[in-house]
Amino acid sequence: MIVHETQVRVRYGETDQMGYVYYGKYAEYFEVGRTELIRSLGLTYKALEESGILMPVADLQIKYRYPAKYDDILTIRTSVPEHPKSSFLTQYEISNEAGQLLVSGSVKLAFVDAARQRPVRAPQSVLDAVKPFWPES
Amino acid sequence: MIVHETQVRVRYGETDQMGYVYYGKYAEYFEVGRTELIRSLGLTYKALEESGILMPVADLQIKYRYPAKYDDILTIRTSVPEHPKSSFLTQYEISNEAGQLLVSGSVKLAFVDAARQRPVRAPQSVLDAVKPFWPES
Amino acid sequence: MIVHETQVRVRYGETDQMGYVYYGKYAEYFEVGRTELIRSLGLTYKALEESGILMPVADLQIKYRYPAKYDDILTIRTSVPEHPKSSFLTQYEISNEAGQLLVSGSVKLAFVDAARQRPVRAPQSVLDAVKPFWPES
Amino acid sequence: MIVHETQVRVRYGETDQMGYVYYGKYAEYFEVGRTELIRSLGLTYKALEESGILMPVADLQIKYRYPAKYDDILTIRTSVPEHPKSSFLTQYEISNEAGQLLVSGSVKLAFVDAARQRPVRAPQSVLDAVKPFWPES
Repeated sequence: MIVHETQVRVRYGETDQMGYVYYGKYAEYFEVGRTELIRSLGLTYKALEESGILMPVADLQIKYRYPAKYDDILTIRTSVPEHPKSSFLTQYEISNEAGQLLVSGSVKLAFVDAARQRPVRAPQSVLDAVKPFWPES
Repeated sequence: MIVHETQVRVRYGETDQMGYVYYGKYAEYFEVGRTELIRSLGLTYKALEESGILMPVADLQIKYRYPAKYDDILTIRTSVPEHPKSSFLTQYEISNEAGQLLVSGSVKLAFVDAARQRPVRAPQSVLDAVKPFWPES
Repeated sequence: MIVHETQVRVRYGETDQMGYVYYGKYAEYFEVGRTELIRSLGLTYKALEESGILMPVADLQIKYRYPAKYDDILTIRTSVPEHPKSSFLTQYEISNEAGQLLVSGSVKLAFVDAARQRPVRAPQSVLDAVKPFWPES
Repeated sequence: MIVHETQVRVRYGETDQMGYVYYGKYAEYFEVGRTELIRSLGLTYKALEESGILMPVADLQIKYRYPAKYDDILTIRTSVPEHPKSSFLTQYEISNEAGQLLVSGSVKLAFVDAARQRPVRAPQSVLDAVKPFWPES
């Protein structure tokens, strides 16, 4: 299992008139979480795209427990629970400064060959980067 | 079961550099779908809020099959599969002009008393509006 | 001068905790306005891009008079005050259902050759489409 | 003159299919810039709102020179060129890691008494915070 934490501060434009972060905005926080997790592995999603691999989202699940509010510093804990093969499963827990768990969720991403627009298996660069976490895979 | 259809046209600002609608944007399309379904029942979500009832989202699930693209006219088919009691379950299917199913999902909303910030059961105005669909409830 | 009107309904996710539409969101409403103005000329921005012409924004100005609110139906009045040459100037007035002018502004777009990433003059398809409005140009 | 710098990293969801940051998103970057400038003065915009002062935007101007791209680290240089009286003028310069100036602009904010929904002059907390920069005001 790979785990990484990063932080974002809630922007005013991310709130809605309920006074909370709009429910669709957490998808963007999840994106920040996995972008930084991938960077922590020595890769970047940007470089993956430049190498011809897109990673569109296949599945999103979010459970909302407590609302995040304007100016909150949120900690996004991103984890990869299983060795990536034909897809890349990521899980998320978002907490506020008091350590209260606000939101949890998961995102399953595919690997797609941009030129052929076809699903492919995890590229070698990804397999190499995650090898320390699943040495026997 | 209550079913309602409405349409949106994809805005440029809703796409990302993959050339598709960004995955978090579908939460907003779902919002449009249920807003119009509620309006079709003779209510408005706006009036519900003004009467002191908030409906925060408790749970979101999205399955992405094919990407929506810039300038597509999307049909959002929203349905309410069960009589609302302490929560309001809504389901969604988004298709393009060719009738291709792009995205499906569900959103579970709570009813919250704004003044007391406490969950409550569906207010009478909602129960009255859905009565024709579940006459025996 | 070319003038076109279109409408949008304010989404919940477009509001912020002040209870108004977030100030950055009007850029997206302006985009809807010019997209539909271009469509009214028998062109689409989508087809322009597919033909290799991008139209990035060079300049944006917005004056906010009164706030737009959730569920408002907004009328976006888009106009093109001068014949497009090396740039495309568009102006906007957004009003609510009571006819109250909420926001006015302008957007200047460039024409860019996508392949060479260089500014170019208005393509022939655009010149042909606007000819009825400036017959002597 | 008050000057403050902060940084943001461009999110995937902030790009559009042109491969650049969507032009409306810079309003949100400007918001981050002035939020952090205000924090550097020992205030927070959040506390201002809680004290009953809203700061809606009256005027926005943006000049786009070069595009920001996904994963860029942007430096937002925010400045306050004049002593705030009935409005709060803020100016912005956004540069990338190479030091290239991408976008410049300005935002004029009003001070509004939330309870009475009326424009007011800068509150004492703001006047106190900016006093070191305009000692004779």
